[in-house]
Amino acid sequence: MSEQFDRHSGEVPSTDSVFPNHVSSRSLQGRSLVTLDDISLPQIKDLLDRAAYIDSHRREVAHTCDGRVLATLFYEPSTRTRLSFETAMLRLGGQVIGFAGAQLASVSKGESISDTLKTVSNYADIVAMRHPKEGAALVASRAASVPVINAGDGGHMHPTQTLTDLATIRARKGRLTNLTIGMCGDLTFGRTVHSLISTLCRLGQVDFVLISPDELKTPEYILERIDASPTCTYRETSDLGEVIGDLDILYMTRVQKERFFNEDDYLRLRDTYILDEEKLKAARPDMAILHPLPRVNEITAGVDQDPRAAYFEQVRNGMLVRMALESALLGDELPGYQVRKEVQA
Amino acid sequence: MSEQFDRHSGEVPSTDSVFPNHVSSRSLQGRSLVTLDDISLPQIKDLLDRAAYIDSHRREVAHTCDGRVLATLFYEPSTRTRLSFETAMLRLGGQVIGFAGAQLASVSKGESISDTLKTVSNYADIVAMRHPKEGAALVASRAASVPVINAGDGGHMHPTQTLTDLATIRARKGRLTNLTIGMCGDLTFGRTVHSLISTLCRLGQVDFVLISPDELKTPEYILERIDASPTCTYRETSDLGEVIGDLDILYMTRVQKERFFNEDDYLRLRDTYILDEEKLKAARPDMAILHPLPRVNEITAGVDQDPRAAYFEQVRNGMLVRMALESALLGDELPGYQVRKEVQA
Amino acid sequence: MSEQFDRHSGEVPSTDSVFPNHVSSRSLQGRSLVTLDDISLPQIKDLLDRAAYIDSHRREVAHTCDGRVLATLFYEPSTRTRLSFETAMLRLGGQVIGFAGAQLASVSKGESISDTLKTVSNYADIVAMRHPKEGAALVASRAASVPVINAGDGGHMHPTQTLTDLATIRARKGRLTNLTIGMCGDLTFGRTVHSLISTLCRLGQVDFVLISPDELKTPEYILERIDASPTCTYRETSDLGEVIGDLDILYMTRVQKERFFNEDDYLRLRDTYILDEEKLKAARPDMAILHPLPRVNEITAGVDQDPRAAYFEQVRNGMLVRMALESALLGDELPGYQVRKEVQA
Repeated sequence: MSEQFDRHSGEVPSTDSVFPNHVSSRSLQGRSLVTLDDISLPQIKDLLDRAAYIDSHRREVAHTCDGRVLATLFYEPSTRTRLSFETAMLRLGGQVIGFAGAQLASVSKGESISDTLKTVSNYADIVAMRHPKEGAALVASRAASVPVINAGDGGHMHPTQTLTDLATIRARKGRLTNLTIGMCGDLTFGRTVHSLISTLCRLGQVDFVLISPDELKTPEYILERIDASPTCTYRETSDLGEVIGDLDILYMTRVQKERFFNEDDYLRLRDTYILDEEKLKAARPDMAILHPLPRVNEITAGVDQDPRAAYFEQVRNGMLVRMALESALLGDELPGYQVRKEVQA
Repeated sequence: MSEQFDRHSGEVPSTDSVFPNHVSSRSLQGRSLVTLDDISLPQIKDLLDRAAYIDSHRREVAHTCDGRVLATLFYEPSTRTRLSFETAMLRLGGQVIGFAGAQLASVSKGESISDTLKTVSNYADIVAMRHPKEGAALVASRAASVPVINAGDGGHMHPTQTLTDLATIRARKGRLTNLTIGMCGDLTFGRTVHSLISTLCRLGQVDFVLISPDELKTPEYILERIDASPTCTYRETSDLGEVIGDLDILYMTRVQKERFFNEDDYLRLRDTYILDEEKLKAARPDMAILHPLPRVNEITAGVDQDPRAAYFEQVRNGMLVRMALESALLGDELPGYQVRKEVQA
Repeated sequence: MSEQFDRHSGEVPSTDSVFPNHVSSRSLQGRSLVTLDDISLPQIKDLLDRAAYIDSHRREVAHTCDGRVLATLFYEPSTRTRLSFETAMLRLGGQVIGFAGAQLASVSKGESISDTLKTVSNYADIVAMRHPKEGAALVASRAASVPVINAGDGGHMHPTQTLTDLATIRARKGRLTNLTIGMCGDLTFGRTVHSLISTLCRLGQVDFVLISPDELKTPEYILERIDASPTCTYRETSDLGEVIGDLDILYMTRVQKERFFNEDDYLRLRDTYILDEEKLKAARPDMAILHPLPRVNEITAGVDQDPRAAYFEQVRNGMLVRMALESALLGDELPGYQVRKEVQA
């Protein structure tokens, strides 16, 4: 008996010798994505190419994953991320099963992550998993017989958020290198910031401006990561206004109340890192403002109308990179898409 | 980059000059429905026509919304309403994403309704939203770049329930005017009753019989609304048995325990307004009994078999009007459906 | 107006006279499944045949239920079972609506199961219901105008689990009779064990070996059920190691902590009934190990690699029998499937 469901599209997978352009997606087929370090820079760029292709060929790709089933296993709520993964699969023609919130899952009967993934591998063709514990996604990917995408595990990794950020930077600036990128807010606990810096360091030629209160500075191991990149630099500051004019990208993050010992410190520091129309006057006209969302009040509503605001575009890019990733891991070719020569190498 | 997903049906929208019959649906395309006061009487009648057409052409309309995605954002549970909206989209060929219960949503991280709707506009083609606060649907419709349907906001409006009631009255009586309509039970807090009376007053020529205990009488502003209609009248009574023989329609509502100061009053009054087979003996043979459901014990189970009972038909009509509304707001034409001349005017 | 949605597949149901082979599925069409006692042995075997056919014809059956809607009404969480029913319908081309957890349902407003089922009958073509109270599924099946599948009601019945177990036994051993079957663990409260024994007794020619601590022995009425079968036998023991060499099938169950008066008893007994690689050495090389899952620690992880471990296969078989059952109750023929002569009789 076959382990997996065949697709019912009637299409037969092409072979390398006939379609040599498909080398790249072939290499991601059947693989899991726990961290972006799992995949090569050409593969990352290829996923961004695919996301852009999907955006301009939505009708053509609408049946790419016909007959597929995605399972969204969300052991903690993250509605925004869950809906993005689910919409991505539906927009490709596939279907979705899943749960949100551990209280609804068999885990309440003491089942291990491994057993749950072995079970769900019998239902779904691909899994997106969110879990509060670091390392859960790796355990899941080892137990599953289908690809597992890490949709966030504790303070650890959230690779599709980083792909989303990269797609937005490239869409706005036309490139991922030769950029001055400001990271602003909570740089101690901001998982998305750490992951984005690490990946940009692999690409190289980025000058980071790290803007945070002293209480929320960038951890040493991230600074060492930048130092280890021969073409990247950083400087630290606590004053957004002083550096905003230098930036190509301003990446804002939430300053979370629960990070502070007392409410007074929180209120004082929070307001220092609020982006408003006044502070924006000193910024370049082509700077792009990113934010992983949800925001509370780090960016005032007035900024939303500014053409530099890119954070709702980011939401759309998040869905597009997830469409690219889901189809690539499933090995379902996007009709008409051609892999670039550099990716095949 | 395009803001919205194209449909992948391959159909190109027709233009007014070529298909002048489509004026009406064109005018609803892309709009939100916060209250029925947002749309004209011909548009309301057209939606009822569409619902009836769908019921007799289910196979023909089964792919009307292929490639569409509905988001159901239910900030408070209302399983019955949510399933009705979702089934409506699935029966039209579309897909569904969403959440039920605020605890599962990003709102728990303090996100505003506006930001949630801006986000979801990137995922879905249309939104049905339920929220405990009055005015939430209006805020949502202003922030979203896709149509928003109000699926209930606090004690305020619930326009698809009223469309459901109208569809059931028309299906049973063949008309929406020249009717004597009894409203029975909790007329103080019954949102559905207020909304139905308001819309019937726009249509005119209805005699309302308002049947309630003194504690739960119709509010003054609703009585004034009836007075303002030149062709509508009302009378108030506390005795269902005395008036039941006069009615074309009997609209029953739940008398909720939490409306009373003490349990004795509740128990005494509740029983007065229970419809049973005995009370029904005095009613006309062609009277129709409506109830927005869920019922607790306002109507005894024995009445369910009576041909006058129309409340489970109402459930089906609810799904049908939601199919009509979703397709109309999306601008997806029902194959074979012709708009009446009076609607085009 | 039609009560039910037509399918939009364009296929017209065949008549008995033209396709006499379809007698069996015709007889299940439109029926509910509350307990396996509702259906005949040939029908049970036919469902197992269909499950096997589906497994080897997944592409062919992928549109069997196009246009259908399954409602999963889970009044208590059982994620594993819910996902199995849902995946089954999606893999057949249908769609899914539903809820999980009574707190989300209209029941919180006091609605009866009957009213909920009358409502949902207007939305869905078939229902799978899980409820904590015994008898709930029977009440539901009487109120609904569409087929209802009992997905577990209290400690009572869970017929699709039994079909799953039978499918796995037949897949592993090629037969359902002439077997020595060990049941191990909690035989007092283990609903799945009782249901499996009852159905195997209908088939006959099974020797049961009932392995449990004295505190968790098989209830008298089940032993009487075996006695009443002229070709079945049983023996009871508390020592797994002593009998494991005799078994064709070893059916393991969870020993739940809450069944014991004190923790010491639980810990002592639990370990006695853990299956590990050491105990397996005495078992036959072609014995099959079943477990309804989720497991806690009744089977050590090392056993998973043993070719005798069949419990994750059971998960797949669970989905396959649900595909067979859903399509049969809907009367949707599996393309190319031929009913065996003995079933038609």
